[in-house]
Amino acid sequence: MTTTAIITPIILCGGKGTRLWPMSRSARPKQFLKLMSDWSQYQKTLLRVADPSLYAPPVVITNAEYRFLVAEQAEEAGVKLAGVLLEPMPRNTTAAIAAGVIFASADGGERLVHILPSDHEIVVDDAYRDAVRAAAAAAAAGGLVTFGITPSEPATGFGYIRAGAPAGEGALEVDRFVEKPDRARAEEMIAAGNHYWNSGMFLFSTSVFLAECRTFVPAVVEAVGEAVKKAARDLDFIRLDEEAFAASPDISVDYAIFEKTTLARVVPTPIRWSDLGSWDAVWEAGAPDAAGNVARGPATVRNAANTLVISDRLHVALTDLDDVAVIATEDAVLVGRLSKAQEVGGIVKALQANAATRELTETHRTSYRPWGGYSSLATGERFQVKRLFVKPGKRLSLQKHHHRAEHWVVVRGIAEVVVGDETKTVNENESVYIPLGAVHRLANPGKILLEVIEVQSGSYLGEDDIVRLDDEFGRK
Amino acid sequence: MTTTAIITPIILCGGKGTRLWPMSRSARPKQFLKLMSDWSQYQKTLLRVADPSLYAPPVVITNAEYRFLVAEQAEEAGVKLAGVLLEPMPRNTTAAIAAGVIFASADGGERLVHILPSDHEIVVDDAYRDAVRAAAAAAAAGGLVTFGITPSEPATGFGYIRAGAPAGEGALEVDRFVEKPDRARAEEMIAAGNHYWNSGMFLFSTSVFLAECRTFVPAVVEAVGEAVKKAARDLDFIRLDEEAFAASPDISVDYAIFEKTTLARVVPTPIRWSDLGSWDAVWEAGAPDAAGNVARGPATVRNAANTLVISDRLHVALTDLDDVAVIATEDAVLVGRLSKAQEVGGIVKALQANAATRELTETHRTSYRPWGGYSSLATGERFQVKRLFVKPGKRLSLQKHHHRAEHWVVVRGIAEVVVGDETKTVNENESVYIPLGAVHRLANPGKILLEVIEVQSGSYLGEDDIVRLDDEFGRK
Repeated sequence: MTTTAIITPIILCGGKGTRLWPMSRSARPKQFLKLMSDWSQYQKTLLRVADPSLYAPPVVITNAEYRFLVAEQAEEAGVKLAGVLLEPMPRNTTAAIAAGVIFASADGGERLVHILPSDHEIVVDDAYRDAVRAAAAAAAAGGLVTFGITPSEPATGFGYIRAGAPAGEGALEVDRFVEKPDRARAEEMIAAGNHYWNSGMFLFSTSVFLAECRTFVPAVVEAVGEAVKKAARDLDFIRLDEEAFAASPDISVDYAIFEKTTLARVVPTPIRWSDLGSWDAVWEAGAPDAAGNVARGPATVRNAANTLVISDRLHVALTDLDDVAVIATEDAVLVGRLSKAQEVGGIVKALQANAATRELTETHRTSYRPWGGYSSLATGERFQVKRLFVKPGKRLSLQKHHHRAEHWVVVRGIAEVVVGDETKTVNENESVYIPLGAVHRLANPGKILLEVIEVQSGSYLGEDDIVRLDDEFGRK
Repeated sequence: MTTTAIITPIILCGGKGTRLWPMSRSARPKQFLKLMSDWSQYQKTLLRVADPSLYAPPVVITNAEYRFLVAEQAEEAGVKLAGVLLEPMPRNTTAAIAAGVIFASADGGERLVHILPSDHEIVVDDAYRDAVRAAAAAAAAGGLVTFGITPSEPATGFGYIRAGAPAGEGALEVDRFVEKPDRARAEEMIAAGNHYWNSGMFLFSTSVFLAECRTFVPAVVEAVGEAVKKAARDLDFIRLDEEAFAASPDISVDYAIFEKTTLARVVPTPIRWSDLGSWDAVWEAGAPDAAGNVARGPATVRNAANTLVISDRLHVALTDLDDVAVIATEDAVLVGRLSKAQEVGGIVKALQANAATRELTETHRTSYRPWGGYSSLATGERFQVKRLFVKPGKRLSLQKHHHRAEHWVVVRGIAEVVVGDETKTVNENESVYIPLGAVHRLANPGKILLEVIEVQSGSYLGEDDIVRLDDEFGRK
């Protein structure tokens, strides 16, 4: 096996981090956000492993809630996936990685896999490519390789790896893993010179990983093996068996394997890397100007230093402040101290604890669906107004509502509408009425995005008042 | 004349202050905002002069743009106005006050007038009432009385009045007026003890004021007298003659008269008063909690001190900051240093200078009209969605548009709709279509607020594409 062996990427995409609230919410967490770029972090991860001379199509591990986001963003990035595994519940990184490894080696063959978190920012340059090649070589030689980022500062937000003796192929032995240190300990490690940030990226051979897994955490291999074997196909998704997967121990791969195996290796990786773990990391990745300010979206910033402004629609006017982050979405604004960005987790907990604000941590005003999506525009006592957008060629489920009637006004594109037994074409500037209880369906038979203003009237307007009679996306 | 003589209030209501942006905008400036209360500052001003044993109905000086706000908010407060004078252009306080005085004494009689800015916050208590009675007595004795607020701190944002010898009736002679001082000068004046804040409130007899006006600025009396004489009645409004009013000098009443006359008196007024001139004044008036935080509207504030949060709809989450103001509206958010709140004027200038942001200083997402109003919900390339609200018994103008068609969906109440030659009743959950070019009218014949979702489609969607064929509010 050479360093140009084909590697199968396994992308971990089920995280729900809260520290990038209010942009990141549980229905659309940070790996799917297009924060500073036209691509989300997940898409950038896909594009990093898109070189067919080095990589096979990737396997993605996620959960049912994110399955359409995973599929659509891959399609948008032009990347074909080898499989999308859906975890029935979170069972930590050992189970997730084991599922990907077992699925990737289901044909009985051995292969190299590259485990990638889906939310990291990495500048792909020669140093990065060299590190991947070295890791592949060390993995081919039987190592369980971790990527150790060369520290740029004594960060206290990451675990560290202390490297030992050279182990060939540019890799080093792993002396020990160090939990997130305090500042003094971090400075000592930087001074010592043989410590690296634990990136959460790995590269190894499927057979080596599974063998070590069987040695140290056999219950994980057994449970996950069963969950893959009994998995149900659902369109393009592979639903891991719930009962089997639930039986897996909930344990991180660092703790379960890497801290115990003698096969761990670290490849020093001198790259520009960020886990975008909180808003200060986003600020740093955003290339602050001379005064230390970063602004994305509509903003006016005056007499300010060390600030981050991100807004998707509202105009943010920031004046006479230092060390502040302002993150503005359609329904919530975070204003916090940039250098205490990790405190955002606390405010999210406070919002979650209050029934009146919980939804602000879960959903955005705009929701995405496999056929397109919708934004809530206005809500009244017995009415709600939404903007629906339907992609060309897509259609919503055949459905009915018990408690609401709907008016649809087409404002862009062309709609094909089923109401009861009738199917009609509705053009721009035309409308159609869906009486309460009527079976109906909306489709976009055209070549451009269809936009519809929907006015709902009724005594109950919740999303759960929907009876799906037929759905091409397999939803109930 | 006794201290219980009937006084005519003259309320100055044409200001467009920018320092309470983004709540205050030129189309609805701070005197009309319900910032911290169910009543606006203008309404509170009306209610302060509502005691019929002391006050006659007030005269309001404003401009054409604010005429409906002035009339509606008075109606809402249950206050009958003696007249609403519309300035064709701003000509400073001497002309505005002269117009009110000439109008109030048009019957040839002499009377006392109380000049009140419409945007001040005053706690009405015995001290306030005593001050008004003393001022009335001193005015009846021939004085041009100013209210001198007893300073609570060495403020640098106001002019001061140095008082002289007692002049009877609780008033003092005015020694001199002092421009806004620096901090050291302000402290000196506080220490001296005989200095008061110049409140911009006055009380005097119409004949005394006009006589001094004729002496010091005869051109103002001449121009304004002509403008009142030639004024046009427009419904309940008195439009001052444009050509005549334009000829008036543009000069403040302090400079034109009070600094020159020997008749100036000051009544020491030991009251809780604020001009709400900037966000720090609003914070102070908002009764900060023990940590110095004030929050109005949906907000979560953690680990913060000396902060002001005002939001009308967005949820503001503020964490780990000190000395910050966050003012959130539907389309703009201000984040600034609370103790430098006067800098907001600078950011407004920056927004005004940019064509892309100018509108944020002029209008709100919700606009008020004499029949009700509308909010913009969404704007697309060839469409716009609005929520219209029409008060019971009111109707919009009979109108047509050259460039847009409209769909109306009634979501609350009952509508009477004219389209072409037809008049129909549209109930909740029904809709009607207004083709491009069709003459139409919307009315609320019911007893509750009518709410309509309007979807506009067309190549041009500006507010100025409107041909009014008939309008009960006299608009063209």
